[in-house]
Amino acid sequence: MALETRQRLYCDAALHNGAELTLNRDQSHYLINVLRYQTGQEVLIFNGVDGEFRASISVADRKKAQLSCHEQTRPQDPMPNLTLVFAPIKKARIDFIAEKATELGVGRIQPVMTDFTQVSRVNTDRMAANAIEAAEQTGRTTIPSVDQPISLQNLLEDWPEGCHIIFCDEDYAGTASFAFHKQVASLKGPAAILIGPEGGFSPRERDMIRGHKAAVPVSLGQNILRADTAMLAALSLWQGVAGDWKDA
Amino acid sequence: MALETRQRLYCDAALHNGAELTLNRDQSHYLINVLRYQTGQEVLIFNGVDGEFRASISVADRKKAQLSCHEQTRPQDPMPNLTLVFAPIKKARIDFIAEKATELGVGRIQPVMTDFTQVSRVNTDRMAANAIEAAEQTGRTTIPSVDQPISLQNLLEDWPEGCHIIFCDEDYAGTASFAFHKQVASLKGPAAILIGPEGGFSPRERDMIRGHKAAVPVSLGQNILRADTAMLAALSLWQGVAGDWKDA
Repeated sequence: MALETRQRLYCDAALHNGAELTLNRDQSHYLINVLRYQTGQEVLIFNGVDGEFRASISVADRKKAQLSCHEQTRPQDPMPNLTLVFAPIKKARIDFIAEKATELGVGRIQPVMTDFTQVSRVNTDRMAANAIEAAEQTGRTTIPSVDQPISLQNLLEDWPEGCHIIFCDEDYAGTASFAFHKQVASLKGPAAILIGPEGGFSPRERDMIRGHKAAVPVSLGQNILRADTAMLAALSLWQGVAGDWKDA
Repeated sequence: MALETRQRLYCDAALHNGAELTLNRDQSHYLINVLRYQTGQEVLIFNGVDGEFRASISVADRKKAQLSCHEQTRPQDPMPNLTLVFAPIKKARIDFIAEKATELGVGRIQPVMTDFTQVSRVNTDRMAANAIEAAEQTGRTTIPSVDQPISLQNLLEDWPEGCHIIFCDEDYAGTASFAFHKQVASLKGPAAILIGPEGGFSPRERDMIRGHKAAVPVSLGQNILRADTAMLAALSLWQGVAGDWKDA
């Protein structure tokens, strides 16, 4: 699929007509040294709240490039009301979770610690950086938040009213009545996809989730998917069957 | 999600009650040296055609471990009639395509060379190895074939009768009437997901695909997805809306 051909950058600064921006060292290096952009050349800029703007390079400095902000090219989109709740998995596979979740339109990424989680800490800064890069490359104007890890019990106790918990329950694998599209096609409003770790949820956790009034158990086919694959599949299916892609 | 707890191996040999098998060097090393399996311990074995069998280690040799095949634990599943046709992308991202496509239930992986494809060769042996590993880990009894690359024009000219081409067309991004689930929910029979390279299909190619009688153009939401993300999303949606997960 084609990506934006004009360079698109996230910048943590207020954006408006006439705003002057200074890029950070990494962005300046990339734009001026690597891509060899020169004074007057244009990029697209967004900050996650003010929409997207066209901006031109006013000072082509290799460490502190400066941009002049021209007109808005896109208004700010609302933050998607889709959350990914996932149990952290080993590093090699976590690296692309924030990236793919961002592309697939989540508004919030919530790591959750479970009985069988084998990872003790989550680099949320790195995940946030992955999310920004994915937003830059795929034309999103919003950046999903990456929250600090929380225990499953605390998460469920403070669960926001009215938000569905789409529970990818491997015990229901292959059970026709729990097929994803049947369970979610008629749901409205905010939702979270909940995916367990390799090894699944413990029986205690499974009871806790199933007993939650917001829980919607779903099956993702006959075979047990890897945790990262299950996330991507469930997010895609949600978008296609109940979410933003349903009519777009 | 939980994976199989018993070690599961692909073995390129005929499987039946009483069959004696010799594992290759890599598998022998992994099972005997790394996992420290001993004589009498059991594994699950499949070969892509005879279903899955329980087998026990008869000779715990570190280079040529031998197994005795006991009863069949699962019959052979039919090969899924879902194909992934994709334009090769850079190496870092191609590595997981065969893995994810296998988990998401394709029967055939067909690399296709397009006008904007920037990769000159595809390591199909490596992709086949990735597919076997994914099949081992996710309980599939079938192994998808990984075909040699072919030009888009040749592929379309020899397209098998009756197989839908689900064409992820970025020109229709955000077009409600081409929403994936609307376009595919009522389709029956074999299908292929067709995904272009970064940069998309050329106008000539797009005309050629749209003019094909088997083509079903679909939209995957408002934003343009990266090629690898679009593949995973389209395969998941196909399975959930029209394929194997629809009633499972």
